Amino acid sequence: MLPTTGRRRVQIEGVSPEIDGGRFPIKRTVGEKVHLEVDMFCDSHDAIAGLILYRPESSQQWQEAPLSPLVNDRWQGEFTVSELGSYVYTVMGWVDHFKSWRRDLTKKLDAGQDVSIDWLIGAELVEKASQRASTEDVQALKDWAAKLNSEEKHSLVLMPDNTLSDALIVLMDKYPDRELATLYENLLKITVDREKARFSTWYEMFPRSCGTPGKHGTFADCEARLPYIASMGFDVLYLPPIHPIGLKFRKGKNNATQAELEDVGVPWGIGGPEGGHKVVNPQLGTLEDFHKFALKAAEYGIELALDIAYQCSPDHPYVQKHPQWFKHRPDGSIQYAENPPKKYQDIYPIDFESEEWQSLWEELKSIVQFWIDQGIRIFRVDNPHTKAFPFWEWMIGEIKQAYPDTIFLAEAFTRPKMMYRLAKMGFTQSYTYFTWRNTKSELTRYLQELTQTDVHEFFRPNFWPNTPDILPEFLQLGGQPAFIIRLILAGTLTASYGIYGLAFELCENRPLKEGSEEYLDSEKYQIRNWDLDSPDSIKDVIARVNCIRHTHPALQSNKSLRFHEIDNEEVICYSKQAEGEYEETGLKSDLIVVVVNLNPYHTQSGRICLPLESLGLKPKQPYQLHDLLKDTQYSCRGEFFHVELNPQVNPAHIFWVKQYVSPSTRPMWDGNYIAPEEYV
Amino acid sequence: MLPTTGRRRVQIEGVSPEIDGGRFPIKRTVGEKVHLEVDMFCDSHDAIAGLILYRPESSQQWQEAPLSPLVNDRWQGEFTVSELGSYVYTVMGWVDHFKSWRRDLTKKLDAGQDVSIDWLIGAELVEKASQRASTEDVQALKDWAAKLNSEEKHSLVLMPDNTLSDALIVLMDKYPDRELATLYENLLKITVDREKARFSTWYEMFPRSCGTPGKHGTFADCEARLPYIASMGFDVLYLPPIHPIGLKFRKGKNNATQAELEDVGVPWGIGGPEGGHKVVNPQLGTLEDFHKFALKAAEYGIELALDIAYQCSPDHPYVQKHPQWFKHRPDGSIQYAENPPKKYQDIYPIDFESEEWQSLWEELKSIVQFWIDQGIRIFRVDNPHTKAFPFWEWMIGEIKQAYPDTIFLAEAFTRPKMMYRLAKMGFTQSYTYFTWRNTKSELTRYLQELTQTDVHEFFRPNFWPNTPDILPEFLQLGGQPAFIIRLILAGTLTASYGIYGLAFELCENRPLKEGSEEYLDSEKYQIRNWDLDSPDSIKDVIARVNCIRHTHPALQSNKSLRFHEIDNEEVICYSKQAEGEYEETGLKSDLIVVVVNLNPYHTQSGRICLPLESLGLKPKQPYQLHDLLKDTQYSCRGEFFHVELNPQVNPAHIFWVKQYVSPSTRPMWDGNYIAPEEYV
Repeated sequence: MLPTTGRRRVQIEGVSPEIDGGRFPIKRTVGEKVHLEVDMFCDSHDAIAGLILYRPESSQQWQEAPLSPLVNDRWQGEFTVSELGSYVYTVMGWVDHFKSWRRDLTKKLDAGQDVSIDWLIGAELVEKASQRASTEDVQALKDWAAKLNSEEKHSLVLMPDNTLSDALIVLMDKYPDRELATLYENLLKITVDREKARFSTWYEMFPRSCGTPGKHGTFADCEARLPYIASMGFDVLYLPPIHPIGLKFRKGKNNATQAELEDVGVPWGIGGPEGGHKVVNPQLGTLEDFHKFALKAAEYGIELALDIAYQCSPDHPYVQKHPQWFKHRPDGSIQYAENPPKKYQDIYPIDFESEEWQSLWEELKSIVQFWIDQGIRIFRVDNPHTKAFPFWEWMIGEIKQAYPDTIFLAEAFTRPKMMYRLAKMGFTQSYTYFTWRNTKSELTRYLQELTQTDVHEFFRPNFWPNTPDILPEFLQLGGQPAFIIRLILAGTLTASYGIYGLAFELCENRPLKEGSEEYLDSEKYQIRNWDLDSPDSIKDVIARVNCIRHTHPALQSNKSLRFHEIDNEEVICYSKQAEGEYEETGLKSDLIVVVVNLNPYHTQSGRICLPLESLGLKPKQPYQLHDLLKDTQYSCRGEFFHVELNPQVNPAHIFWVKQYVSPSTRPMWDGNYIAPEEYV
Repeated sequence: MLPTTGRRRVQIEGVSPEIDGGRFPIKRTVGEKVHLEVDMFCDSHDAIAGLILYRPESSQQWQEAPLSPLVNDRWQGEFTVSELGSYVYTVMGWVDHFKSWRRDLTKKLDAGQDVSIDWLIGAELVEKASQRASTEDVQALKDWAAKLNSEEKHSLVLMPDNTLSDALIVLMDKYPDRELATLYENLLKITVDREKARFSTWYEMFPRSCGTPGKHGTFADCEARLPYIASMGFDVLYLPPIHPIGLKFRKGKNNATQAELEDVGVPWGIGGPEGGHKVVNPQLGTLEDFHKFALKAAEYGIELALDIAYQCSPDHPYVQKHPQWFKHRPDGSIQYAENPPKKYQDIYPIDFESEEWQSLWEELKSIVQFWIDQGIRIFRVDNPHTKAFPFWEWMIGEIKQAYPDTIFLAEAFTRPKMMYRLAKMGFTQSYTYFTWRNTKSELTRYLQELTQTDVHEFFRPNFWPNTPDILPEFLQLGGQPAFIIRLILAGTLTASYGIYGLAFELCENRPLKEGSEEYLDSEKYQIRNWDLDSPDSIKDVIARVNCIRHTHPALQSNKSLRFHEIDNEEVICYSKQAEGEYEETGLKSDLIVVVVNLNPYHTQSGRICLPLESLGLKPKQPYQLHDLLKDTQYSCRGEFFHVELNPQVNPAHIFWVKQYVSPSTRPMWDGNYIAPEEYV
């Protein structure tokens, strides 16, 4: 059987980005660019042209972005997504007979050949274009066709070098002949989120610990805590589950199997007689209190994020009402969670192989819907890798279709393929292995995977130096400098990061026991009363880092991340850039260079090599490094400079790079602190 | 809307091989293996299992091949294609509850936990398997279920280390529960060709040059030439077009614009008053003569390959009968071929944008069909990159569906993406850049691209050191050693190669002019009478190389190609292997190591490093290198040995490697020619 597209000669393949043959969407935020590359060619020697077609999925109207050739049949182009929701894009290419004609005409003229018939062909092509033209251009094209047919065509349409008049080329390019254009076979998708999906600063806090000592905190107490959180510059406040907590098999302090009467239980043991996932724990207040708290947070520029933990305590109403959603054992009991030999008898996992999966899925979705109805748009999803993948694709897809501003953060600390698959399935942001990546080579390799490969197109990392489940060894042993080092890495390596608050800024580093990553006296099991005004708090450094993040677009996305050479394995150096005109700096981008001493114990120094030209700096001119942490400015010249970082005093630099060196700049030889290569 | 596959928890992605998301088939020959890898995982901690499904496209019956885990959720498996034609394959995976159960049971037993309910669960799983089992296994499974429920279960079903009895595991693995199995989304395709698609040895010959001096050769003359060709070990004899040649604008000797009366014309200028592509040039004989010649060739084990050149001389009948298949110029004339400022007025290209493309395509296909009806199954296609890609996919697809033993060789010397795309579109074999790859780094990089990347799955290289259009500089300047070097490279680097005969074995090296790759007195324009018995002929070396190729499976496919270290940029060393038991050599593969001096002028020596263990050799034992070119044997020990290659005497070694060292082996220190590291 003959194909219907037999005359369409242009071939299109190798489109990038394209995730798994177009099976999954790429991700962008409103206003972001999509840079596209594609292989495009046709048989023979004809010239071709092509463009990108894109549109919001809901629109019928394609928008177009031009493609220009790179090398070896590779083409590139870019476009900006401006609306929240889903976009689609693809590529179109066609044989450009007019371009072939004018190229060959010039060659023949240069060779002194008879081109009388070529002129007729050209006139025909222009005449045909006039039939495709908008009214205002019809006459102009007809005039050009007449010129091509006239005696004086050489002087009328040719430049001195035998190439065609630019005016005619521009006009013809407006009306390409796309009758036999090829459309790429795959219609590719983009999920366009709001900015916070890309750039967000998270603070995790247990509401019940916000009360006065000896009292269970309430939403009203949380309200009182807002100025403190806002002063550090966080814009997302994530709360562990705020629902009633089960009593059966409730865990005691420090994960004791037997809870005492006063023990408050684990917030993730969701569900009690008062209700389940759609109910507020009465000890925290009412749903109205929650609304009031959320509104007040918004006044501080803080958005609440809730926890979605699809699991039940044995006391959850689902257990009675929908026993078929759980796995039953031959003795009639419901299967509790286990990872043999460990048992979690306080948790009943959902059975995603349930025959009543359809009602189950609808109910699970309705939980998210319930909280969306309460004004919540950010959800941190607990252990999504222990729930069936197809569910996530469906649930997130449905929710985001109706509420495209919704953000889902996947708390999956699991194997790499599973983490990436969850992101492909629709999760907006993801927890990462950053928590355990400490050395220069570990960080470099991992960040290159996250930012310089296709992973960047669908997986948005959210870096957490600690969580209520993880007090990493580096923080246990490294003292306050370790916390500051990890903070600066998290806050500058990726555009989204978060901390499990109070434990972090107060440098809580006591593990449950040696070799464990569990916190001693963990808030998962008990209320903690923190001393917000402790002199050891690093809240001011946090505030500083977050302020820098908010001021500098370079730190608000990840793709521009580049690592730079430094001759010390304990010091890491990297830069990030954001396009734009920055009069103040004399550069065409906002350029931040970060240097971090990864050793929390000892001073480290090293010689950094910055590739000035590829960073947009003029290699022969001096430039200024403005340390935004200490607000000190240094002038430099040349690609090499030395740094020395004492972890007790300044474990890191966050340099704002300026081409212009102002008179107030601290001279580079001052204090011998940073000096250009020639002075060392 | 809920998906229908919501309960299917296993995720499948990253299947390899898969070309462009399954858009194009991979290629194999009958009896070859497909090694498949895939990422497969499910949520939670459940064990999973999976398999490859494959079948001839025409069959309804899936065959299964097991998948086994590699690392990080990557699985592998392989299967063999045994029938000519198209195959399809995909992957299936499912949650293996029985495997999860027995894994957890062991862990719980080891921890001394109460497992009474676990036993009940296991018995249930086995009971359910008995319902899926074939009649002969039903009772056995029921018996096992009973054992699991019995008081003596520990002694009846457990091994001393608390793992389950192998017998039960094997039985259960026969009856997996695939009710909720996931099928990979893409159905992938394989084109299965006959062996010659993978392994072939081509000889190109102009039939008209086979006559006695002064006479136009005939098919009868070609018959007389067959013993000569067969003696060199070729199995494909490719003839340039054998059709009537146009007179209008016919080219003279050495591409003269004006032909003399006696000039025979260019065979690719197809079509005259006698007919076109379906007619034999009367000067060569009749169609019957052609049949006789083809039959005789078959007796010599030689298969004829014809040229498919879809273009017409101005005298071709199509020009009158189907003017609409050509492009017309405004003056009414037909557009001849041109690449400005060059003109080819003797050639009318086909217009693939013709509005009558459907009748055109059918007619073009009918040309191939005509020659298939004459018994031909191999076609060398002239300049396929100057004809529309969609046509090839359709035409080759249609022909191969009816005649799956057909082979199409793409003569496209063009840009890389286009060459690969033609292969994807269905061409069985392809010309390559080998013709111009001379240095070690050029050859290594190109061969790695061809054999160690996905290219290997769809692009079968056919290496030609020369063609009637290309006398490369290397051959022009390097004398006889250059011809031998290029012969050995072509014949051992890839499983298919060819030479433009007589010009090659007689070392014809005179270019049309300096800087040109055209032959002087090229057979494209005139008859040549060659001296088959010239003392300078390298026909014996060719015969030797082809004999080695036929004897050694290692040289009959490409994927096993590996390059080895040698400390001289002018010497290249590589190996190829074919699996199998070779008692004679004491190895589990046929192992060939080739060493070639790439410098045709000077003797080169160097120290080679062979990775003995990865080649299947025992590193501590001596091994034998049997030079198949000179039939000399050397014994070696250790990974290092020295070679010295004089291009006038022995530009290369083709070593057959044997673990056993026979008493007749020439001692390694003899002549100091090849010696292990320790003696040098």
